[in-house]
Amino acid sequence: MSEILHELTVQLGERSYPIVIGQGLLGEFDLSPYVQGSQVMIVTNDTVAPLYLDQARACFPGKTVDAVVLPDGERYKDWQTLNRIFDGLLERRHSRKTTLVALGGGVVGDMAGFAAACYQRGVPFIQIPTTLLSQVDSSVGGKTGINHPLGKNMIGAFHQPQAVLIDTDSLNSLPPREVSAGLAEVIKYGLIRDTKFLAWLEQAMGRLINLEADALAEAIFRSCACKADVVAQDEREGGLRAILNLGHTFGHAIETFAGYGNWLHGEAVGTGMIMAADLSAREGMISREDYDQAVALIKRAGLPELPPAEMTPEDFMTLMSVDKKNVDGRLRLVLLNGIGHAFVTGDAGAENLAATLAGFCRAS
Amino acid sequence: MSEILHELTVQLGERSYPIVIGQGLLGEFDLSPYVQGSQVMIVTNDTVAPLYLDQARACFPGKTVDAVVLPDGERYKDWQTLNRIFDGLLERRHSRKTTLVALGGGVVGDMAGFAAACYQRGVPFIQIPTTLLSQVDSSVGGKTGINHPLGKNMIGAFHQPQAVLIDTDSLNSLPPREVSAGLAEVIKYGLIRDTKFLAWLEQAMGRLINLEADALAEAIFRSCACKADVVAQDEREGGLRAILNLGHTFGHAIETFAGYGNWLHGEAVGTGMIMAADLSAREGMISREDYDQAVALIKRAGLPELPPAEMTPEDFMTLMSVDKKNVDGRLRLVLLNGIGHAFVTGDAGAENLAATLAGFCRAS
Repeated sequence: MSEILHELTVQLGERSYPIVIGQGLLGEFDLSPYVQGSQVMIVTNDTVAPLYLDQARACFPGKTVDAVVLPDGERYKDWQTLNRIFDGLLERRHSRKTTLVALGGGVVGDMAGFAAACYQRGVPFIQIPTTLLSQVDSSVGGKTGINHPLGKNMIGAFHQPQAVLIDTDSLNSLPPREVSAGLAEVIKYGLIRDTKFLAWLEQAMGRLINLEADALAEAIFRSCACKADVVAQDEREGGLRAILNLGHTFGHAIETFAGYGNWLHGEAVGTGMIMAADLSAREGMISREDYDQAVALIKRAGLPELPPAEMTPEDFMTLMSVDKKNVDGRLRLVLLNGIGHAFVTGDAGAENLAATLAGFCRAS
Repeated sequence: MSEILHELTVQLGERSYPIVIGQGLLGEFDLSPYVQGSQVMIVTNDTVAPLYLDQARACFPGKTVDAVVLPDGERYKDWQTLNRIFDGLLERRHSRKTTLVALGGGVVGDMAGFAAACYQRGVPFIQIPTTLLSQVDSSVGGKTGINHPLGKNMIGAFHQPQAVLIDTDSLNSLPPREVSAGLAEVIKYGLIRDTKFLAWLEQAMGRLINLEADALAEAIFRSCACKADVVAQDEREGGLRAILNLGHTFGHAIETFAGYGNWLHGEAVGTGMIMAADLSAREGMISREDYDQAVALIKRAGLPELPPAEMTPEDFMTLMSVDKKNVDGRLRLVLLNGIGHAFVTGDAGAENLAATLAGFCRAS
């Protein structure tokens, strides 16, 4: 069974592109109209390739399709692994009219997208995200990049895809931990912009955890639509777009501390959103009832409530100060002023921040 | 003595920027109005740093100025060396509001520009080119990037500077071979677009070789203006801009064959232009008198007339087929149809091309 359940267009002027969401699309949906030249290079990893590479190839009838299979894992999101994409493109003589295709999760999407941004100073790319996190996060926004030993996503580019194809069936092979990690970002959209979506999530959480296709497609559609709306207003992250980083400043510190890949990005964001909500409550921006509501939903999604046991407030302060969101050395945070409404501030009280860190850290 | 001799604005809408050309500007001209934040990172190499780094620092009064000194040479235009810029930026905690400054020749400019394009997904940069080649070529166009073992400039980005500062005094320390290499690109602008400029070059060549500041500033100004005019019409190299690659397809093959850095880029372009002119004559597009005129001017600039003695026609064919200018496997070349007028073609006769290669190659 192959069925399109939702479609939306990300509005970015001449860089606008469609997101097609459905069930059974992999291997059935024809993506060749989105390919300008004759060459396609699929970038995937060694976990996803045995499951979906043949189906992905079948989406490009009439094209010459090559593939690069990378090792799976955030720890490979580095230059050495990125270079394997360039090696493959040059060995197979891909011209500047080639199209790259990202088949996999966020790491594959970030790397294939950055390779597309840089190969011969920029070639088109298409995304086929196969994890919930990448479907609701990387599908919209055009952020691509790799990690540096001194910080996550420190090297990258903004590069928009030609099209995004999302097949909810690809979530059937996803470990439950990764489903939860994806739900962290889904919940985020409710917390920052959409109380109605938040109410829908509270009644639909059981069906999402059970991977029911209709519920998943609805959650993915509403998440992408929310992010697309924000990004359309602020493509290069000058202002509004920063609210999408709710939980990410605390979360990046957790990921860096734990070592890339030990905590999933979505898990760290889940805990980070709880910490941001706690600080928002201490700042008097939301009530403790609002805080409890947010924590309950995040926990129902199967996400961790506390950072790693060994992490100290000093670890947080050190790791947060190199975060990209800082401007000229000031720590900028995304907080909530009401449930369903986020804002960016460089003025969070130092004492309240210290209290939040002390409250969540079990080591000192 | 500090004197501005010429100024022009590269017209690119919201990405427009000024090029200031003069004598004695390094250390005197205030570039701080072009810096948004408080942080500046100068990227230079170990040849240029002892000569001009202190003067460059003095161009940014009131800013925090750090520096990264790279090893000098095209062979270091790779990811490992690029990473030293990212290391320096992250170790010194440069935020996404930092400004990178390229102080040096084309390699430094390409690498600092690409680092600026990628650091935290893009930060501003300023160019202070100190070689004639980089002053007339890299100042305009926004091309940045690094080499890959399988091809030159295969990884990069389009990224426009905030401003370009050109001090003709910096050419006094330049080896004569590098002056000649720069003159290759200067002559190129005459050959592709501007017969009047070509006539001026024929009478001014002696003063240029003698590094007279007024003549240099005039040649740099007219070269930048010519390139700016072409780039303004075609920022992303869709069509017209390709004529700027006159001599570059043959030239890149020579550079790759010789091993990066053994032939200077401008030397390879000089020989490449002679080969392109020869093919143009064989195709009946220019007369043999036109050809002789072009060869005479290129030789007066001190440039080589023939490719490396060991290079065969097969070497050229192999190395040219991975060139970026090819589309879907077809060899595209820039030829002259009249002196002072270039065009791009994918239809050069295979027999004429073979005759040109046979005529210029001493090995087979």
